[in-house]
Amino acid sequence: MKNHPVIYSAEIICVGTELLMGQVVNTNANYLASELASLGISSYRQIVIGDNHQRLAEQIRLSASRSDLVLLTGGLGPTSDDITMEVAAKVAGKTLVLNEESLETMKSFYRRICRNMPVSNKKQAMLPEESIVFQNANGTAPGAMFKAHIPSSEDKEHEAYLVLLPGPPSEMRPMFSTQVRPILEQYNSVRFKTEYVRLYGIGESTAEERINDLIDNQTNPTIAPYASEGECLFRITQKFDKDDASDLITPVINTFKERFGEYIYEVGNRTLKEVVFDMLSEKKLTLSFAESCTAGMASGEFVDVPGSSKVLIGSIVAYDNRVKQQLLGVTTDVLENMGSVSRECAIEMAEGCRKLLNTDISVSITGIAGPSAYSTDKPVGLVYLALSDKNGTIVSEIHLSGNRMRVRKVSVLHAFDMIRKRLLDYES
Amino acid sequence: MKNHPVIYSAEIICVGTELLMGQVVNTNANYLASELASLGISSYRQIVIGDNHQRLAEQIRLSASRSDLVLLTGGLGPTSDDITMEVAAKVAGKTLVLNEESLETMKSFYRRICRNMPVSNKKQAMLPEESIVFQNANGTAPGAMFKAHIPSSEDKEHEAYLVLLPGPPSEMRPMFSTQVRPILEQYNSVRFKTEYVRLYGIGESTAEERINDLIDNQTNPTIAPYASEGECLFRITQKFDKDDASDLITPVINTFKERFGEYIYEVGNRTLKEVVFDMLSEKKLTLSFAESCTAGMASGEFVDVPGSSKVLIGSIVAYDNRVKQQLLGVTTDVLENMGSVSRECAIEMAEGCRKLLNTDISVSITGIAGPSAYSTDKPVGLVYLALSDKNGTIVSEIHLSGNRMRVRKVSVLHAFDMIRKRLLDYES
Repeated sequence: MKNHPVIYSAEIICVGTELLMGQVVNTNANYLASELASLGISSYRQIVIGDNHQRLAEQIRLSASRSDLVLLTGGLGPTSDDITMEVAAKVAGKTLVLNEESLETMKSFYRRICRNMPVSNKKQAMLPEESIVFQNANGTAPGAMFKAHIPSSEDKEHEAYLVLLPGPPSEMRPMFSTQVRPILEQYNSVRFKTEYVRLYGIGESTAEERINDLIDNQTNPTIAPYASEGECLFRITQKFDKDDASDLITPVINTFKERFGEYIYEVGNRTLKEVVFDMLSEKKLTLSFAESCTAGMASGEFVDVPGSSKVLIGSIVAYDNRVKQQLLGVTTDVLENMGSVSRECAIEMAEGCRKLLNTDISVSITGIAGPSAYSTDKPVGLVYLALSDKNGTIVSEIHLSGNRMRVRKVSVLHAFDMIRKRLLDYES
Repeated sequence: MKNHPVIYSAEIICVGTELLMGQVVNTNANYLASELASLGISSYRQIVIGDNHQRLAEQIRLSASRSDLVLLTGGLGPTSDDITMEVAAKVAGKTLVLNEESLETMKSFYRRICRNMPVSNKKQAMLPEESIVFQNANGTAPGAMFKAHIPSSEDKEHEAYLVLLPGPPSEMRPMFSTQVRPILEQYNSVRFKTEYVRLYGIGESTAEERINDLIDNQTNPTIAPYASEGECLFRITQKFDKDDASDLITPVINTFKERFGEYIYEVGNRTLKEVVFDMLSEKKLTLSFAESCTAGMASGEFVDVPGSSKVLIGSIVAYDNRVKQQLLGVTTDVLENMGSVSRECAIEMAEGCRKLLNTDISVSITGIAGPSAYSTDKPVGLVYLALSDKNGTIVSEIHLSGNRMRVRKVSVLHAFDMIRKRLLDYES
């Protein structure tokens, strides 16, 4: 395949009834999409389709007529309903021929797992003529890359590359990263540089209003907003045509910093808990949580960060008021007069926990995550958090919407953010 | 929408640049596909596409011309790049009109979270005329269902239903299950009855081998296996043509019970933690956890079950050995000679926690979830759990594969299952 055209655009087709029936989540599309993005290849569509001759052939033809590259996964197995290779070859007008090397690889695969190769597997070594063949180090089905000349209405000469990959992620991913990606890196034209700005404590629409002018006038770099539960994220992407292009991203980030200030917890790839962990770790500070409504979720989330045992000493899940009193020393006076969901209770919980577990910082969370078993006049979504450290204790009152799970998740994020903001003060 | 045609076929279109760029995994397609399957509606294609007017309009037109139902998710937000409602209405030839009820729901949503509604949100209440409107209990964007008359080459009269749903799963799922699904149940042709058999403690392939004969010979009912982290689930579906068909599911379930015995924790819809909660609640027993490697995850998971405050008193997250000693009374002898990941430590943690928090049952979890900061000769994935109750203390040693997160998740499931099995003994 010398004399290759540049690959600008791609589509992903995932073949499999198990996807159409909702039996498995399509992580292949996600993986390939993110690979394409990092290669600077535009991806306009992903399609999931079943093992049906006519529909699959139609789809490959349509995708190949409008994109430079079509990545297909699945349907390369040995059984009669695995038809992707055969259908794709037919669309491209190629004959299937026996690939001796693939047959050998397959036989040695079976020798390695001490089994005889079933006759049906030979079918998997039948590949389109004039293909680049990708051997499968982790299974039997080889992959293949070949050209298909499918004229489009605008471009009679249009040619696309078809790349066929096995369905199991454990076979597909290593095949793509070690064999397909290096080829695609030679075939594409532009380079992209991407940076992420991550915010907490500001809603998506409010955030966008503050930078409407930037979004409206964007050409290069482009600015794309994303919202996830309680968090807000902007992706800034610069397109390079040559390597010595000047940096257009930093000025945009500086504008973001001016307009959002402390809402920005990260410019880069770290999550909120990773940022908090790094800050605590760097200052050699220890942490504990006193959790009521979140019931261990804050601590459980925090230890996702590798190395967290250097920072998190432990936590008290004080779901019942008895535990709040007995272990954290919350007073009867506060529980009876203010209730367990109150500013005062949050303060006593944080201070009591810090003392009990002897940590530098302790954060308490008490709130109403969902309809309560106990009668209360306080609204669902009301949460109090307190942070106790050497400088004293601060409290935060928040009102959250959504179901039980969301209230708890956002409360946990808020707890992390309280720690972050407090540590920023340490520096000044 | 009286006089509705029967819905036989559907396509799913997920709108969002974040999907095309590979930033998030498309769990919406998976969820909707499995819902369609259980409704007996054939699903031939899933498509992911970006927020681009022309491409989105083309796709909706194509999908609506060949399917009876088009489910769309995403792109209903308040910002200018959220165009799904507008584009779908245009394809269907409908005008957008202000839906007062949605505007009110949205305003009260903002009142609940004590904020002013940004002006841009009003756009979300602009819905196609003649729609069924789905109010959003967990966010701002309402959903809508309306007819589109898109003639196909074979059928000039072809009409499709377009259903537009918000992108965030926490909003989409409850909207679908409580508002859309009941409508679709009326619109499809055949009836299905489905039952789930849920197992813990047996691998998917081992489970399948035990019922290979049933799977191979299935016609009606059908038996479909699903595996998720550490759990194993079979869906048994009977197809009815008329209402008085005899029950074919119960005999299959009885065969499952013969072959799997106590591995089955539920025939029905309850999750493992819900089963455990119901058992504890019925027996009026209280619970606490002493968590090391899971660091609060078991308690945090357990309180997902509404009403859990009647059962869970509290927990001790003893991540650092200091907390194991100081609060749970783990002895220096055990820590120095056996280590914190040992049978003996698990026993002392469970017994100490039960005593400290004065609960009927206490379960401890201590293990190696990932590469440790401390040198140890114990393998990653080794976890000890102990359960202490009035009858004494039992221990369980498990060896798990997978990453940090999986080890912790499966440990939590195992803790729940230990409680379940122990309570089964109470009865005999």
